Amino acid sequence: MNILIDGMGGDYAPQEIVKGAISAARKIEDTITIIGAQELIGTELEKRGWDGDNIAVVNATEAVTNNEAPAMAVRKKKDATVNVGMRMIKAGDGDVFISGGSTGALLAAGLLGLGRIKGIKRPAIAAFFPQIGKNETTLLLDCGANVDCKSEYLYQFGIMGSIYVENVKGIEHPDVRLLNVGTEAEKGDDLHKEAHELLANSSINFKGNVEGREIASGVCDVVVTDGFSGNVFLKSSEGLALSIMGRLKDVLLGGTISRIAALMLSKQLKEMKKEFDYSEEGGAPILGLKGPVLKIHGSSKAYAVYNAILKARDYVASDVTGQIEKALADNDELSEYKTEVTDGNAEA
Amino acid sequence: MNILIDGMGGDYAPQEIVKGAISAARKIEDTITIIGAQELIGTELEKRGWDGDNIAVVNATEAVTNNEAPAMAVRKKKDATVNVGMRMIKAGDGDVFISGGSTGALLAAGLLGLGRIKGIKRPAIAAFFPQIGKNETTLLLDCGANVDCKSEYLYQFGIMGSIYVENVKGIEHPDVRLLNVGTEAEKGDDLHKEAHELLANSSINFKGNVEGREIASGVCDVVVTDGFSGNVFLKSSEGLALSIMGRLKDVLLGGTISRIAALMLSKQLKEMKKEFDYSEEGGAPILGLKGPVLKIHGSSKAYAVYNAILKARDYVASDVTGQIEKALADNDELSEYKTEVTDGNAEA
Repeated sequence: MNILIDGMGGDYAPQEIVKGAISAARKIEDTITIIGAQELIGTELEKRGWDGDNIAVVNATEAVTNNEAPAMAVRKKKDATVNVGMRMIKAGDGDVFISGGSTGALLAAGLLGLGRIKGIKRPAIAAFFPQIGKNETTLLLDCGANVDCKSEYLYQFGIMGSIYVENVKGIEHPDVRLLNVGTEAEKGDDLHKEAHELLANSSINFKGNVEGREIASGVCDVVVTDGFSGNVFLKSSEGLALSIMGRLKDVLLGGTISRIAALMLSKQLKEMKKEFDYSEEGGAPILGLKGPVLKIHGSSKAYAVYNAILKARDYVASDVTGQIEKALADNDELSEYKTEVTDGNAEA
Repeated sequence: MNILIDGMGGDYAPQEIVKGAISAARKIEDTITIIGAQELIGTELEKRGWDGDNIAVVNATEAVTNNEAPAMAVRKKKDATVNVGMRMIKAGDGDVFISGGSTGALLAAGLLGLGRIKGIKRPAIAAFFPQIGKNETTLLLDCGANVDCKSEYLYQFGIMGSIYVENVKGIEHPDVRLLNVGTEAEKGDDLHKEAHELLANSSINFKGNVEGREIASGVCDVVVTDGFSGNVFLKSSEGLALSIMGRLKDVLLGGTISRIAALMLSKQLKEMKKEFDYSEEGGAPILGLKGPVLKIHGSSKAYAVYNAILKARDYVASDVTGQIEKALADNDELSEYKTEVTDGNAEA
């Protein structure tokens, strides 16, 4: 397997990307290809004493930054890392592409370079969210690829999410819910009322609406959301968890007695902290693209990169893209969506 | 002062409402008027040995439940607690009305019975959110009164929130931000891009977008949001904080050593838990109505009711309704909104 990773994407690129890639390359036999400024990455590899043979470097002379309008930058910078990655996937020269760069650029490059699975209106970013205290996760999609949604997109997110969880986790007929302001079917704005109806009439195991309050305790396998609310949910949860754990740390280091108590609890607290740590989770796939693409957090350090590379192998093995394609081909309820194909937008 | 409270609203009504009202009545000299089924409330008061003279009961023969379409139920049930409360406020027979019942019903009754402040397009629910570790709070509005928003509503939420924080907290020119999927001005859907522009050109101290990630750590005084995202943000934060604190409790009670450590930390952990506890915060005002109305959590128990009653006095004293009216009268930038007055919707 050849795992491609964007060497220039993220707050700590290329240093932490290279560091994470080396750790992964020492653990697995698959090839890891770092895409980016060849000389810079070569120097980083050398500096860290890399002498193995399963890391390759592919040169890309440009990179898209977070400050550029994604769609335009992707069209202009033909040799940007994200474009090189997508071209390699399309040509069969790589099995999966991982990037911690601008989400909008990754999405735009994916739409331009790979395109959507036939019948899929909009790709969606799908991330696992921890079920606190249950050692389980809930899939949330869309996490921000589509800030302007239509009800039929949400309906398709439900189907893609269901297929993903079924294939990656082996859960048959996973429970799917719609993130809304209340549990009753008639709650929410028109978008969510319509999406509720479409999902309720679909073949997936749709269990109705879910309020934000219940997600952390884990009430279902998949949560469908529009990209705006999903992004707000994910980022605010992440911020709050970090703040609470930070506050706990302050409490524990606040006095001699607390310090002793903290020592006594250190193992358990470390385990607890791990539950909220995105660097454990691996990358979030962009479902609906014609090829496996994983987004990692922009602030990913080496350990998150390492985990993402390792977990990317399972994602490739589960062939989610193929399964979604197959489901669309098999499924009559989706056929009405197969003819009309419009251009995707990449905004978040 | 006469503080009106809905005796039938909330999951634990009337028992916990009466219990909280008694605690408050023993603490303050103001009159507390419980609105609801007179006999039932009388029995509850008797059962708890109430023999003071600053609790009154006003009979209301009906109540709106969470399962009814709010606007219709409020129109049909003329003698519902929420309608009686609004009529009393309008007639000057009460200074503030508190309810833990259906948000939609409270809003519909407010629009019908009190109406909006001239020039305000939509009332908004404004709740304080803790700044973790800072002993401060951020005002978030709208928390769910308007699931379908227009940019001009968001603009007005910013102005009302600014006035509220200035008057209740005494912060001059409070920092206002817009909840969005990114910090750059061009982020988000059309609604949020337009709202950003309106807010940026207003007279309030607008500091741009804020991502969900940053709110818990406290970066501004006021966060403006559409009612859908605001509701998702608030409920998911509440659910996550509860789950994390629950998980921490499990860790602390998980073994003999942890139990000892927990004992050593009990004071600090209690303080920390208090930070995330909505029952400390008091009610959330519905800003924009022509009178002081506070929403409390549906799951409020006696302590939350007690706190809401005590804090309601400060809300009345700060005369936020009057200040918003005054600001609208003084402010030319708002004058374009003064002519067109449409009907409000009450959905969440």
